[in-house]
Amino acid sequence: MHAPSTTKPVILTGDRTTGPLHLGHYVGSLKNRVTMQDTHRQFLLLADNQALADNAHDPEKVRRNVIEVALDYLAVGIDPEKTSICVQSGLPALCELTMLYMNFVSVARLERNPTIKDEIRARGFGRDIPAGFLCYPVAQAADITGFKASVVPVGEDQAPLIEQTNEIARRINNQIGRAVLIEAEAVIPKVGRLPGIDGKAKMSKSQGNALPLSAAPDEIKRAVHQMYTDPNHVRVSDPGSVEGNVVFTYLDAFDPDEDGVADLKARYRRGGLGDMAVKARLEVLLQDLLAPIRQRRAALARDPDFVFDVLRDGTRTARAITQATLEEVREGLGLFELGF
Amino acid sequence: MHAPSTTKPVILTGDRTTGPLHLGHYVGSLKNRVTMQDTHRQFLLLADNQALADNAHDPEKVRRNVIEVALDYLAVGIDPEKTSICVQSGLPALCELTMLYMNFVSVARLERNPTIKDEIRARGFGRDIPAGFLCYPVAQAADITGFKASVVPVGEDQAPLIEQTNEIARRINNQIGRAVLIEAEAVIPKVGRLPGIDGKAKMSKSQGNALPLSAAPDEIKRAVHQMYTDPNHVRVSDPGSVEGNVVFTYLDAFDPDEDGVADLKARYRRGGLGDMAVKARLEVLLQDLLAPIRQRRAALARDPDFVFDVLRDGTRTARAITQATLEEVREGLGLFELGF
Repeated sequence: MHAPSTTKPVILTGDRTTGPLHLGHYVGSLKNRVTMQDTHRQFLLLADNQALADNAHDPEKVRRNVIEVALDYLAVGIDPEKTSICVQSGLPALCELTMLYMNFVSVARLERNPTIKDEIRARGFGRDIPAGFLCYPVAQAADITGFKASVVPVGEDQAPLIEQTNEIARRINNQIGRAVLIEAEAVIPKVGRLPGIDGKAKMSKSQGNALPLSAAPDEIKRAVHQMYTDPNHVRVSDPGSVEGNVVFTYLDAFDPDEDGVADLKARYRRGGLGDMAVKARLEVLLQDLLAPIRQRRAALARDPDFVFDVLRDGTRTARAITQATLEEVREGLGLFELGF
Repeated sequence: MHAPSTTKPVILTGDRTTGPLHLGHYVGSLKNRVTMQDTHRQFLLLADNQALADNAHDPEKVRRNVIEVALDYLAVGIDPEKTSICVQSGLPALCELTMLYMNFVSVARLERNPTIKDEIRARGFGRDIPAGFLCYPVAQAADITGFKASVVPVGEDQAPLIEQTNEIARRINNQIGRAVLIEAEAVIPKVGRLPGIDGKAKMSKSQGNALPLSAAPDEIKRAVHQMYTDPNHVRVSDPGSVEGNVVFTYLDAFDPDEDGVADLKARYRRGGLGDMAVKARLEVLLQDLLAPIRQRRAALARDPDFVFDVLRDGTRTARAITQATLEEVREGLGLFELGF
C-alpha cells in the first residue's frame, strides 16, 4: 500500500479490543494519532491477545470489538494509507518473542511493576492473577520491540511498562552482543484526560459514564443533559463553580473559542448563567464533532470487505516486520534454525 | 514420509536440548521409545524453547544440542519412518497456544506445582525465577495438547505436570463447550532409573557421573573401572554387599542372563568374588551395547544433511498438526480470524 519510510520514527500504539472507543479515547489518543500519522511511521495494534488476559471467559466480546475499534479508527480519520492497522493475534512472531523474553525477566520483577500492581488491584484478581496478566508487560515488550518502535505514547501510569520493555531490550542486546532491539521512548501526550459525564476522573464504558464515538444525536443530547455540573448551583442567579464542573471541562477540551469559554466561566462564577445555556453550547459542539464520525463509521460498517482488507493489509505489513525482528533476535542469540 | 495412523494412540515425549544423552536416558526412556514407535504414533520433541527457560544465557549450548540429541535418537534406533522427530522452536503454534492458555491459569496455581517447586529449589533460582520457568508447565500443556497426545511417558516426579495439562485442557474445552482438546494419560514407564557411576541416585552430565551414548571404548572402560561398589569389600575374599553396588545395579539393567547375575550376586555376598571380575563382565556388556550406537552416531554425524532432513520432515508434520489444533482452539473460542 505504501512504501515504509525509513526516515520517519516508528510509533506503535493501539487498543485492547474490549469495547468500542468513546470520547475519552478521542481526546486522550485518537486525535493525537491522526496528527502523528503524518510525521511518523505509525502502527495501530488491535490488541486482541492482550484483551484476553482479563477477558478469557468472554472471547466473543474480544473478537467482536476488533472490528468495532477498527471502525472507530477509520471513522476519526486514521488513514490506512499512512497508518498500518494490524491485529495482534495475526502476528505469531509476537508470541514467539514473548516466550523468548520471558526467560530474561524474573517473576519478582514482574510483580514489582507498579502498573501491574494497580491493575491487579483494580480488577480484583487477588491471588488469582492469570499468568497471562502477570506476563502482559513481557508481551507488550514483544509488541514494541517487534515493531522496532522508537516512540510509544502512553498514559502517565504506564511509563513503568516502557521501562520494563527497555530493560528486556537491553538484556537481549547484551546477550546478543549488539543492539538488535531498539529502546523506546515513552511519550506522554500533552492531552487532557476527559472525565466521565458523571464527573468521575475517567470515562469508561464499564462505569456507564462514557459517550461512544458512534453515539446517536439523542444519546449525545441525553449525555450532555445528564452531565455533572455544580450541585450547589441551584438557581440560575446563584454563583457556580467551574472547577470539577464537567460541562466546563468539556468546553475546555472541545470549544475552539477560548475567549468565549473564559467569558462563560466568569459569568457562571458570578451567577446569572444557567447550566442549560452552557450545556446547549456544549451540545452543539459535540453534535458537530461526532456527526461526521458517526456517519463515516456507519458507512464503513456497511462495507465490511473494505475494513477486512484494511486489517489484512496492515497485518500483512506488520507480519513481515515482526517476523524479521524475530529472525534477527533468534539469529543473534544463535538459536537453532531449520531453514524453512 | 508416512501416513499418520488414526488408530494408534498418539504419544508425545522428548528432551530438553541441553546436552547429549547418556546411558541413564537409554534405560529411562530411549529403549522404551524404540519399542513404542511400533505401537504408537510417536512424536519426539527436541525442546529447545523449554531448554532456554534455565539456559537463557547460553543459547549456543541449546542450539548445538538439538543436533546432538537428534543424533542420539537416531543412533539408538528411533526410526524417522515411524517417529516424527521435531524441533520445538520450529512450531510457532505452540507459542500461540501457550499464550492463550496462560490466560486460563493463575500464578498461584503455577506456584503450587510441586515439580516446579522442586526444580526452583534444585536450580537455586530463589526469587529470581524467570517468568518462562514459572510458566513452563503451560508451555508443556501446549506441547501435549497441541499434538493431541493421549499418552505422555513421565517420571514419577512429573505427574503434576500432566495434571496441570489436563486442567488447562478441561478449562479450554469448558470455555469452548466441547472437547476440542484431549486429556492425556501420564504413563510412568516400568523402567529403572540408572544411578550415576558414582552411586548417586541420578546419572547426570552436570554431576560428572554419566556415561554418554557416544562414549569411546576407553571412556566406557574407565567409567566401569571407576564405578562405585562396596567400600567395605576390600579383599576378594571379603563378603560384599550387592545393594547400592552400582556394578550390580547395572548388571540388573543390562545383563540378559538373569540366572548368571543371581549366581554372581550370591558369590559376591559370600566372599571370594572380586570387583574386577564383576566389572569385567559389565564392561563387555556395555561395550557390546554402545559400540553399534556409537558407530551409527558417528556415521550419522558425517551426514548432517540427512539429519536436517529428518528434523525438517518431522517438524513439518508436527507443524501441520499443531497449527490445526491452534486453529480449532481459536475457532472454538470464537477468536478473530483474518482468513489468511
